[in-house]
Amino acid sequence: MSMKAWTIAASISVIAITGLGITANHAAASAFTTASDAVEYRQKAFSLIRENFAYMSGMVRGERDYDADAFKQRAQALYHLSYIPFEAFSGAGENVTANSDALPVIWENWSDFEAKRDTFQAAVKELVNAAASENMREIRPKFMDTARGCQQCHQGYRAD
Amino acid sequence: MSMKAWTIAASISVIAITGLGITANHAAASAFTTASDAVEYRQKAFSLIRENFAYMSGMVRGERDYDADAFKQRAQALYHLSYIPFEAFSGAGENVTANSDALPVIWENWSDFEAKRDTFQAAVKELVNAAASENMREIRPKFMDTARGCQQCHQGYRAD
Repeated sequence: MSMKAWTIAASISVIAITGLGITANHAAASAFTTASDAVEYRQKAFSLIRENFAYMSGMVRGERDYDADAFKQRAQALYHLSYIPFEAFSGAGENVTANSDALPVIWENWSDFEAKRDTFQAAVKELVNAAASENMREIRPKFMDTARGCQQCHQGYRAD
Repeated sequence: MSMKAWTIAASISVIAITGLGITANHAAASAFTTASDAVEYRQKAFSLIRENFAYMSGMVRGERDYDADAFKQRAQALYHLSYIPFEAFSGAGENVTANSDALPVIWENWSDFEAKRDTFQAAVKELVNAAASENMREIRPKFMDTARGCQQCHQGYRAD
């Protein structure tokens, strides 16, 4: 192996090891390894969902100037985020209600909870499509469906 | 309108208003309205990324038993999350380094930062594909590429 090739190979190894090293410091924070990890994970995810939702809500309610590109970006972010929190109600997050607004009835009615998750995710997809129209008359009803998608679990599955 | 139809319509309005009401309490936390919101948003998103990455890292390094379904789920979550934090470096998050590890050079080299974001997102997509193979020999190099995708910004754009 030439000196140059060796140097490149060594550099790649250092980068790779350093890259993996990122995780070593945070091993305790791995997704779903402990109940408190799972609760923090889903709370952070819901917080990001809420921030995007609130931003769009301001435009739908006319409290913030409608900006089609910004709205599309927020709808797309909501789409990606709609897949994140629910997994943390399983595994280490199953039946965990400590330091959480989650109610035990979630796990008693698990298939209903999953169905409501699916309804929410489907509503967000329709909101993304409506956002592409750049027409608030098309966006508003899909945004309201998304709001109902949130609300269907906030009522019954979440402590107030 | 019949009494029944009116009741349904009224119920939907109440649900809709309540649904929108979720956001009213959190209006101050809207995505990208203030510099500190943007920093919190990107930090929460990176924290969710890190948790999924750390979980997969444990399997790649053999510290956690390889579970093909769990690995696929974490790779898919990482895919969705790879789109979330970067937007909060623009708008209200532009040039914001207070209470953040972000270095000012991000905005001096913005097109390079964007290119590195794209490289990271592409690496994660390849990791998702590799995860579907359920073969650690295919997964490992794509996971290392993803690690390098993180590292390329952690070195140079992030304070240690």
